[in-house]
Amino acid sequence: MKILIIGGNGTIGKKVSNHFSKKHEVLIAGRNSGDVTVDIAASQSIENMFESVGNVDAVVCIAGEAKWAHFDSMTEEDFYIGLKNKLMGQVNLVRIGQKYLNSGGSFTLTTGILADHPVDMTTSPAMVNGAIHSFVKAVSLELKDGIRINVVSSGLVEDSVTKYEDYFPGHNPIPMKKVINGYVKSVEGKGTGEVIRIYDT
Amino acid sequence: MKILIIGGNGTIGKKVSNHFSKKHEVLIAGRNSGDVTVDIAASQSIENMFESVGNVDAVVCIAGEAKWAHFDSMTEEDFYIGLKNKLMGQVNLVRIGQKYLNSGGSFTLTTGILADHPVDMTTSPAMVNGAIHSFVKAVSLELKDGIRINVVSSGLVEDSVTKYEDYFPGHNPIPMKKVINGYVKSVEGKGTGEVIRIYDT
Repeated sequence: MKILIIGGNGTIGKKVSNHFSKKHEVLIAGRNSGDVTVDIAASQSIENMFESVGNVDAVVCIAGEAKWAHFDSMTEEDFYIGLKNKLMGQVNLVRIGQKYLNSGGSFTLTTGILADHPVDMTTSPAMVNGAIHSFVKAVSLELKDGIRINVVSSGLVEDSVTKYEDYFPGHNPIPMKKVINGYVKSVEGKGTGEVIRIYDT
Repeated sequence: MKILIIGGNGTIGKKVSNHFSKKHEVLIAGRNSGDVTVDIAASQSIENMFESVGNVDAVVCIAGEAKWAHFDSMTEEDFYIGLKNKLMGQVNLVRIGQKYLNSGGSFTLTTGILADHPVDMTTSPAMVNGAIHSFVKAVSLELKDGIRINVVSSGLVEDSVTKYEDYFPGHNPIPMKKVINGYVKSVEGKGTGEVIRIYDT
């Protein structure tokens, strides 16, 4: 399979890309590095990326930002950071990318445990994640040519524990191997419209 | 209790307003009619509404739009209709309204079954509903002064069956009495961070 991994150089992306590279042709897209660059917050950039990469069998997105802050300090604009980037960035990947996916291909998006188990300061990322979960269920009813779509929602991943553990009191870290398997299940499995929850709560 | 019901003249709003009026002081806000007018897609309009109404014990929102269309016809802008109106409209009601809620007061938002059980042409409304579910869970961790927040997510309501049944194949209509009870549970109960699902699937 030819697999395009957006965010393939990130904390999770690196491990996922390495894994898929063993069996598949992997192309990495990153904001500043990779085989191709992309800013998912800009539709034109997504269009350019697909133009340059051509048709693929799987698109995996492990990218997207949303602002973490106390709710009483969040402005309306602060919420739009996540809506434009992590939410509409991933929606636009599907909207534009469906034209570049080979028949029977798949999209795999990424959210996180905050959709279901939010913590302090996560009104925006929780919202964005929940939005994507429902979007994936809805769009799976409409994609054509056997194209599938799923989303991987993981708890705090092992490789980010040092950086984020204070924000996730009592959360059990998810081993990277399990996280990788979430993506494998989506890309190499046959399911569609699935929210692949990898939680240990 | 002094209860502000945004969308209190709509299909569901009318029944909910009538019910609460028996025991409480109800103020209705509508786009073009009611005790006060408001366009929830505009923060300034929300601010003006609260300025005019003053402090209340409960805010109930049964309003908000999102575009229904086939995914392959949805533009990026089409998705922003729902994001700006039904999603950020309700988020802004909470963001601005928290200053006008009496201690121990409550917010009750409205979504719908599409968050969990989407049908054809609902990528945008499903996304918005899912976003609000996760937002409500997250923001309930941060609201101060005992302020609560819940969201009522109902299936196809009895009073809308004629208009919408073709879009919801096989969905069992929800009696209006059960829908009303969802709002009663949120406003008069003690729960917070709850997604009050009223489904019959």
